[in-house]
Amino acid sequence: MGAREVGLPDVVGAAGLPSRVTIWEVGARDGLQNESVVVPVSVKLEFLARLASAGLSVLEATSFVHPKWVPQLADAAELLAGLDRRAGVVYPVLVPNERGLDRALEAGVSHIAIFASATETFAARNLNRTLESQFEMFEPVVARALAAGVSVRGYVSMCFGDPWEGAVPQSQVVAVGERLLGMGCSQLSLGDTIGVATPGQVEALLAGFSDVSRLAVHFHDTYGQALSNTLAALRCGVTTVDSSAGGLGGCPYAESATGNLATEDLVWMLDGLGVETGVDLDALVATSVWMAEQLGRPSPSRVVRALSK
Amino acid sequence: MGAREVGLPDVVGAAGLPSRVTIWEVGARDGLQNESVVVPVSVKLEFLARLASAGLSVLEATSFVHPKWVPQLADAAELLAGLDRRAGVVYPVLVPNERGLDRALEAGVSHIAIFASATETFAARNLNRTLESQFEMFEPVVARALAAGVSVRGYVSMCFGDPWEGAVPQSQVVAVGERLLGMGCSQLSLGDTIGVATPGQVEALLAGFSDVSRLAVHFHDTYGQALSNTLAALRCGVTTVDSSAGGLGGCPYAESATGNLATEDLVWMLDGLGVETGVDLDALVATSVWMAEQLGRPSPSRVVRALSK
Repeated sequence: MGAREVGLPDVVGAAGLPSRVTIWEVGARDGLQNESVVVPVSVKLEFLARLASAGLSVLEATSFVHPKWVPQLADAAELLAGLDRRAGVVYPVLVPNERGLDRALEAGVSHIAIFASATETFAARNLNRTLESQFEMFEPVVARALAAGVSVRGYVSMCFGDPWEGAVPQSQVVAVGERLLGMGCSQLSLGDTIGVATPGQVEALLAGFSDVSRLAVHFHDTYGQALSNTLAALRCGVTTVDSSAGGLGGCPYAESATGNLATEDLVWMLDGLGVETGVDLDALVATSVWMAEQLGRPSPSRVVRALSK
Repeated sequence: MGAREVGLPDVVGAAGLPSRVTIWEVGARDGLQNESVVVPVSVKLEFLARLASAGLSVLEATSFVHPKWVPQLADAAELLAGLDRRAGVVYPVLVPNERGLDRALEAGVSHIAIFASATETFAARNLNRTLESQFEMFEPVVARALAAGVSVRGYVSMCFGDPWEGAVPQSQVVAVGERLLGMGCSQLSLGDTIGVATPGQVEALLAGFSDVSRLAVHFHDTYGQALSNTLAALRCGVTTVDSSAGGLGGCPYAESATGNLATEDLVWMLDGLGVETGVDLDALVATSVWMAEQLGRPSPSRVVRALSK
């Protein structure tokens, strides 16, 4: 059933929201790297082509993290070689270090993203660095990328809570983020990696940065808070939102659902609010239904489940 | 794992929110009437006792709808006879008509709720009435209840969209609601029965009523919108929110999740915002885990799933 046939009410805007939002679609990277099934490169290429056809204009395509850590994305070079780049669509890739950058540059990418930690413990566990020494790793990556004309996004993880450290001081998150911006990142993506944030925390953190136009938000739906946090961020002036088609990366049958905000659930809200995204919701739902078949399990997105009855 | 041990960030309020919210817990009625399993009365009584112990102060207990229509709640009289009423807790029951009111009064209830439709088609299908003639059915119910010192809440269903009629004119919803208030209902619960609403629609509808202090909201999470709509309603001054412990009433394995907003997901947000509810989240999660065992399937609440790992 299509989105228009389910009794969708009229479009009604709300004060304080942007007229247009850019969705930074992370399904092919952040989604698939957290799925237990390794998807063939041909399926990933079809997935990206379908997402572009559905109107998504930023498709984070893959990661050059070492395959030992993320076997799901070991085919990054092959994927980029086979990619049919659509006009008007950018395909950023995640790059952890200089070796990753070398591979990304060889593959001819125009946009990369680096992945920083807001906490000492996660820096140690995820990057094998201290909070301070992670920047030594990023500096040459960003400098060389910029020199090559490649745009750099900086992810900041654990912005709202850390499973080992608990609450994360806002000043610490802002310091990490401003350092990445100062290094030359064009955008920060502030991540609630464990999904614990609530709207007051979102507003307070965003207010700590000097320029909200360079901020994106990246919410996980572990505690069901992702969409209301997104709404709060939009009211603060954020216009780029990360989400994952079909909620890829969170298994609906697992005891805990730790996936990204589902792009369809986000588009439903933005469509109803009259906020432009350029996305055709029915085409996107069809894509996620198809991808769920490839993965052999239903999508955790509530919109996908409701519209694919 | 408890809510405090998962990296929950500090409590941070947000402008424009109430300091306290009353949760109108509908799990025992709206939740269980939509579950396929018929739960024994002893289990329902333990469920209500546990919900009261978790700090919920309004527990919609059951319904005097004819058992032919809702066999899950056929034990309403037996349940109320066995109920250990807790001080400070009210136990409203749903009453469809005068026969239902007779049974509710016999059972000694202090609070009832009636269930009206905002649309012609749902009035015909659910009440076998026209939009206009439903009031003839409600008038003697409300008058007799008030005469007996019983408080009456009016539910208005299909406030934001109707599966047969599509978009529902706001003026029509307001007219139905104001009519119920004029009849003597102390509170209206505005229901998004099919879960399609988005925040702009919520704000617009609430603005159509003369007194927001008499309004409650009742969102279903079919399209993942329930919590962000609730946030929008709170910003409009609403201080009573309907929700269902564990998201009862929506099966996580069904193709569509049509259940109520899960109380735990609501409490997580309100706790983070520093909005008082009186609810002990860990006790509530333990209750929903126990109830999920009775039903033989996991809870659709994301908080319950994450905290019961």
